[in-house]
Amino acid sequence: MTDAAPSASLADRYRAVRARTEALTAPLGPEDQMVQSMADASPTRWHRAHTTWFFETFVLEPHLKGYESPHPLYRELFNSYYNGVGAQWPRHRRGVLSRPTVAEVGAWRQRVDRAMVELLAGADDALRQIVDPLIEVGLNHEQQHQELIVTDIKHGLLQNPLDPIYDPKAAAPVAHASKAGWVELAGGLVEVGYTGDGFHFDNERPVHRVHTAPFALAGDLVTCGEFGEFIEAGGYTTPHLWLSDGWATVQAEGWRAPLYWVSDGGRWRQRTLGGRRDLDDGAPVTHVSFFEADAYARWRGKRLPTEFEWEHAARSVKPAADGTFADDGALHPVGRAAPTHGGLRHLLGEVWEWTQSAYLAYPRYRAPADALGEYNGKFMNGQRVLRGGSCATPRDHIRVSYRNFFQPDKRWQFSGIRLADDR
Amino acid sequence: MTDAAPSASLADRYRAVRARTEALTAPLGPEDQMVQSMADASPTRWHRAHTTWFFETFVLEPHLKGYESPHPLYRELFNSYYNGVGAQWPRHRRGVLSRPTVAEVGAWRQRVDRAMVELLAGADDALRQIVDPLIEVGLNHEQQHQELIVTDIKHGLLQNPLDPIYDPKAAAPVAHASKAGWVELAGGLVEVGYTGDGFHFDNERPVHRVHTAPFALAGDLVTCGEFGEFIEAGGYTTPHLWLSDGWATVQAEGWRAPLYWVSDGGRWRQRTLGGRRDLDDGAPVTHVSFFEADAYARWRGKRLPTEFEWEHAARSVKPAADGTFADDGALHPVGRAAPTHGGLRHLLGEVWEWTQSAYLAYPRYRAPADALGEYNGKFMNGQRVLRGGSCATPRDHIRVSYRNFFQPDKRWQFSGIRLADDR
Amino acid sequence: MTDAAPSASLADRYRAVRARTEALTAPLGPEDQMVQSMADASPTRWHRAHTTWFFETFVLEPHLKGYESPHPLYRELFNSYYNGVGAQWPRHRRGVLSRPTVAEVGAWRQRVDRAMVELLAGADDALRQIVDPLIEVGLNHEQQHQELIVTDIKHGLLQNPLDPIYDPKAAAPVAHASKAGWVELAGGLVEVGYTGDGFHFDNERPVHRVHTAPFALAGDLVTCGEFGEFIEAGGYTTPHLWLSDGWATVQAEGWRAPLYWVSDGGRWRQRTLGGRRDLDDGAPVTHVSFFEADAYARWRGKRLPTEFEWEHAARSVKPAADGTFADDGALHPVGRAAPTHGGLRHLLGEVWEWTQSAYLAYPRYRAPADALGEYNGKFMNGQRVLRGGSCATPRDHIRVSYRNFFQPDKRWQFSGIRLADDR
Amino acid sequence: MTDAAPSASLADRYRAVRARTEALTAPLGPEDQMVQSMADASPTRWHRAHTTWFFETFVLEPHLKGYESPHPLYRELFNSYYNGVGAQWPRHRRGVLSRPTVAEVGAWRQRVDRAMVELLAGADDALRQIVDPLIEVGLNHEQQHQELIVTDIKHGLLQNPLDPIYDPKAAAPVAHASKAGWVELAGGLVEVGYTGDGFHFDNERPVHRVHTAPFALAGDLVTCGEFGEFIEAGGYTTPHLWLSDGWATVQAEGWRAPLYWVSDGGRWRQRTLGGRRDLDDGAPVTHVSFFEADAYARWRGKRLPTEFEWEHAARSVKPAADGTFADDGALHPVGRAAPTHGGLRHLLGEVWEWTQSAYLAYPRYRAPADALGEYNGKFMNGQRVLRGGSCATPRDHIRVSYRNFFQPDKRWQFSGIRLADDR
Repeated sequence: MTDAAPSASLADRYRAVRARTEALTAPLGPEDQMVQSMADASPTRWHRAHTTWFFETFVLEPHLKGYESPHPLYRELFNSYYNGVGAQWPRHRRGVLSRPTVAEVGAWRQRVDRAMVELLAGADDALRQIVDPLIEVGLNHEQQHQELIVTDIKHGLLQNPLDPIYDPKAAAPVAHASKAGWVELAGGLVEVGYTGDGFHFDNERPVHRVHTAPFALAGDLVTCGEFGEFIEAGGYTTPHLWLSDGWATVQAEGWRAPLYWVSDGGRWRQRTLGGRRDLDDGAPVTHVSFFEADAYARWRGKRLPTEFEWEHAARSVKPAADGTFADDGALHPVGRAAPTHGGLRHLLGEVWEWTQSAYLAYPRYRAPADALGEYNGKFMNGQRVLRGGSCATPRDHIRVSYRNFFQPDKRWQFSGIRLADDR
Repeated sequence: MTDAAPSASLADRYRAVRARTEALTAPLGPEDQMVQSMADASPTRWHRAHTTWFFETFVLEPHLKGYESPHPLYRELFNSYYNGVGAQWPRHRRGVLSRPTVAEVGAWRQRVDRAMVELLAGADDALRQIVDPLIEVGLNHEQQHQELIVTDIKHGLLQNPLDPIYDPKAAAPVAHASKAGWVELAGGLVEVGYTGDGFHFDNERPVHRVHTAPFALAGDLVTCGEFGEFIEAGGYTTPHLWLSDGWATVQAEGWRAPLYWVSDGGRWRQRTLGGRRDLDDGAPVTHVSFFEADAYARWRGKRLPTEFEWEHAARSVKPAADGTFADDGALHPVGRAAPTHGGLRHLLGEVWEWTQSAYLAYPRYRAPADALGEYNGKFMNGQRVLRGGSCATPRDHIRVSYRNFFQPDKRWQFSGIRLADDR
Repeated sequence: MTDAAPSASLADRYRAVRARTEALTAPLGPEDQMVQSMADASPTRWHRAHTTWFFETFVLEPHLKGYESPHPLYRELFNSYYNGVGAQWPRHRRGVLSRPTVAEVGAWRQRVDRAMVELLAGADDALRQIVDPLIEVGLNHEQQHQELIVTDIKHGLLQNPLDPIYDPKAAAPVAHASKAGWVELAGGLVEVGYTGDGFHFDNERPVHRVHTAPFALAGDLVTCGEFGEFIEAGGYTTPHLWLSDGWATVQAEGWRAPLYWVSDGGRWRQRTLGGRRDLDDGAPVTHVSFFEADAYARWRGKRLPTEFEWEHAARSVKPAADGTFADDGALHPVGRAAPTHGGLRHLLGEVWEWTQSAYLAYPRYRAPADALGEYNGKFMNGQRVLRGGSCATPRDHIRVSYRNFFQPDKRWQFSGIRLADDR
Repeated sequence: MTDAAPSASLADRYRAVRARTEALTAPLGPEDQMVQSMADASPTRWHRAHTTWFFETFVLEPHLKGYESPHPLYRELFNSYYNGVGAQWPRHRRGVLSRPTVAEVGAWRQRVDRAMVELLAGADDALRQIVDPLIEVGLNHEQQHQELIVTDIKHGLLQNPLDPIYDPKAAAPVAHASKAGWVELAGGLVEVGYTGDGFHFDNERPVHRVHTAPFALAGDLVTCGEFGEFIEAGGYTTPHLWLSDGWATVQAEGWRAPLYWVSDGGRWRQRTLGGRRDLDDGAPVTHVSFFEADAYARWRGKRLPTEFEWEHAARSVKPAADGTFADDGALHPVGRAAPTHGGLRHLLGEVWEWTQSAYLAYPRYRAPADALGEYNGKFMNGQRVLRGGSCATPRDHIRVSYRNFFQPDKRWQFSGIRLADDR
């Protein structure tokens, strides 16, 4: 949870991560794995193929003698956005490809897994020095796609008025703790960025100092009940609460509540991977855009934290991974009762917390010169930073220096709100 | 082929038509059956469900006591365009529904088939007088969707650069006859419309008279070789050959050849359901829009026939079903050698022949008052009539009075060209 | 009004037509003449320039030695759609050109007028044989644009909530005659097309015969009051009254009444070139699309006439030009009382009458081989024929064989409805 | 140029600013003032009306007894984006309004000017305390629109292939100084924000501290010649130089050079308000987007400065207003020779300098509670900060704390590039 590196062997972690992907797709038939419900979301089948392509392209083809891809076109069909690798099948057309079939993708995964085992078994230290970091990126990359598999299939299945259920046990309500108050932080010249020696993404570095005024951070995430008050008070119809782009989006999209909230006889219910559920007032609100998070905060007379305030607070309290993670199987921010750490609860897990910070390079950041240089840096435009991981994030994937990012109008991720205030 | 009704019992025909649909989908896995490559085309899975919905909605629910649909939402999910039946799932979003699964759709088909057998076995004469015409429409409707299953999956599979093959035996080249000349027709006040007492669509009636000047009709369909000359001569870059809307489409879509033609090292090849094939110069050209057919005819100094000229000529020669039909399995207009009938060859089968006629009501036509009144009449705008059936049409489905219709820019159907001329 | 040619000298007619264009633009300031409110409509400034371009391009440049255009780019800037002449400034961007200014366009008009006088004064018979037909086309072309000047500036000015008034005397209400009944017509093999030896457009020929069953034609145009009953009865919310494309348009555009009707405290009023007016129940309804005309007719249990029925009826009664024309200055179909002719009233003038006929070539029609061959023929797709002229048509411009045409969803023209019925 | 307030009386400044707007529009006829060439740009006529609306709405109507607007609808027609004031005529449809005419807008301006004189003459101290800050905002607002008048009419006129010239003396080339080197700055905890007691926008406050590492700033702006090297080197076709959104824009828009550069026989020329000009290699490049500025910097192995670095450097050197400003009449960044200040030249004037900083609120910023609270704060999303003013900015309008902002793909402003580097 802090900056420490994981201890399991790389081969063991490889097996575990790859198996976890397959386990996530187990409830999904071939038809489900074909669904692409919008350009932002990809078919499950594609995620399984693309994560496999990653190891094949960056590890096996350059470093395992004799390795051959099942088909030369896979290089293009499953390339997401790496111009350095070559052409890319258009993102919004991923759903029209029925071949390779789900079974063929499964076979490809096994072929790559066998080759990876072979590579690791036969690699000398020199080769390990080269491939280990690539594999580490590949595993973290696959964990990111595990989260997208969950959010994308949620979006896909919930298009269907037949209300398909991914897992009837998902999103079951739990008991909540009583509300924590505000945590006061002195600010000053604080250090941000990944300071350990384990895996981290390039965008978490360089470590540098940022000046921050005194501030306060809410001990708890904003709940469904609290967000319901914003709706009741006319939040979605009051232009001055919104950024201009946000208000335009509210109008254009007809937003009246978070994504997946449905009005049912005058009260709000929520569609989840476990089916339709009564709204749990005490659970964290999720599937809100940055625009909604920002408007909510303004309505409360508060604001969103900067990503630096968030990281500084997190480092100060040394948070436990006390929130819901993918490993817990709820696949929903149920908000289970937990003690606070330094006054803060659920800083890790539950929902990605929108910050007010634009997603930009840290000072002196330079993207790596190789193809993986396209991983993070080129997206540093038009996005906001989210922190802390969600109920769809693997527990061992998150760090306090971890920077997630999405456009401010996106809300199909498990994104939520923690308020900050000036002091 | 003329206006005679089929002789097999309705129950036998029901079984045969329904089985034929399933046979057509046999080469397609669940993933293939999910593909929706454009709004005009529907997933195979949807076609199988919609044709089943047709019997359930129009025959079983009103007429088989105790029949119940597997799910009340199927009424909406598989309603194509019948406002009289209620709401409709949006056409362009058919591909995002993964449930009911392909297997569940298959089970639904069997459930409906069993119920239909039960209905027919138990129906008295009075009931048969009511349901027989509905069933007849349903079977013809299903045959139309069999053709769409072929054209839609062709479009879907051929999006994929992996070149999936539906049937390796499809589109195999055959021997051609030597070219026939022109057939002269005197015209005058000719009768058009369905004159028999068997099944026909409402748009084929009333029988009425049309005045036609003397004209000539080409004995053969335009071939790939002949169309290639148009391309060579710069047909696609010469604006005065085109209708204004056609020229705008050529520019917007970047058309340079018929759909599925691919330039391969300087010569044209063709993608088919049997894979990539060398162009067969002697086979009928297909996958051309009305705009291309019209421009080609203008370039040759000829024109397209009216639908009345076509029907008059067809009635004059009493054509054999000598063209390629779906029953033949080629699923491509291969243009097998055949003797002419009254100088005309392949009038039925091979390709739907574009006429210059707008798709409009025959004089005194009124759409039926019931829900099936939405079948044909409401589409009488902005479309052109095609005649004669294609290689994807069941042989026992076509008639000389049969009117097919598509917008003038569509070319994913097996549409082709037969020239006419003034005399 | 019938097929006779006008008798005034060509030079006199040239002066009169050109002057009429300028008179029409007199109430419009330079700002008004810049407005392009949609791609279908052009700025007044452009119409004045384009009609001038027509004479310059087709008459002066080829036939008046030494004539020079004010600027070589005018050839492109004011070319509407003649590919044979060269490139064209994009239609939807006509409103972004502020140069040549309105005054410069006026000066260009005078320069061309002077050159035309010079040409006509100096032309020998051989030259007159060549240029006279071109000038005749140019004058008829300019008269067509006079109508578009009116309909386009109406659309432009009425975008403005300030309600600019083109002419306060326009659209003043008048007395109506009592309603005429139906006129019965025997049909049979009737002749259509322009039979005289005066000016006519190529699309009015060749004269040919069409077979028509017995039918009846309404003596009067459909009135605002009658159309109001359709609205009252829920016509705009009843899908089965509409063609499928029409229903989609109603939904997409939110149509609830004809264009320019505004709901004012529960009743409908109408915006006109003379300002807001109470609806005149007895005046012809106008600014309806083909889709609305067709739905209205279906709701009444009637239908629209074919263009052949319309022309046959018109030839049978030898209609007077008894409707409102542009010359009358009302610029609105006020529907002044007039005796019927053979039972028909206002067959010419008031509103263009939608027919059910698609705009297609008459048998044996071939577009001229020169640049003017693009005038009519290339638009024979996707449009419906209208007949009879309107309150914005010059009285000496119309003929019973005259074929106007627009896409079925257009309603900014003065288009209206006359019902037909089977007999 | 620093944070000092202007000394002229408010009434004098009001007269001067208002007169300057009118002077700017003098070369433009009524037709020119109607042009809206894209949604981002507004007609001159609208700018003149909107700036008048500003004084009427925020000063006269609340504070001058008896003042009445010429028309109640002006409140809506000329409201840009103030939801607090009420409805707004759609931005992209500003060009379809021809009324009020240009002359009527001129008369409205005079009416408001007279009323403003009356108000200021009669106001007691209490009222002055209220209205003076509003008038100050109004004048600065009008100066901002003076810049937009220039950039918008440039975009509008240059749509026209006739190459209209706004002022033949504009953009005349000048002599340049020899290139300055890099200026080294130590960084540390630096103060940013407006520290004076004169006019400033709310977004320049609160003053706060930012930590900055040592850095260097280029003494000169990037020139056309230098940018030409980027083009020559294939900068526009090399994906890895670009942010992902930038590369997508390059592809979608077909960018190959800055806006208004035209390829003329193999070399680049430039369209200006003074007509087509040879490229001046030594003049600052302009009309580049943030994406292009960022890609150029990456290609040079440098980067763009943050807005804090820029402001810190500016405060360090106490820059002269040595660049081209609107007052100079060139209306183009001609880059006249000037001595450096602390090694920096043209920091103020010439071109707005893209920074890498997202346009976000300064810590503890709160938008004012009144309608003017919509002026700046609600746009803090998706934009990048530009600093320093341009050749279209009034010289007395700029400050070192001044924050301009545009979306990263915009390039119709006079935007340019100054490089920074790490130290």
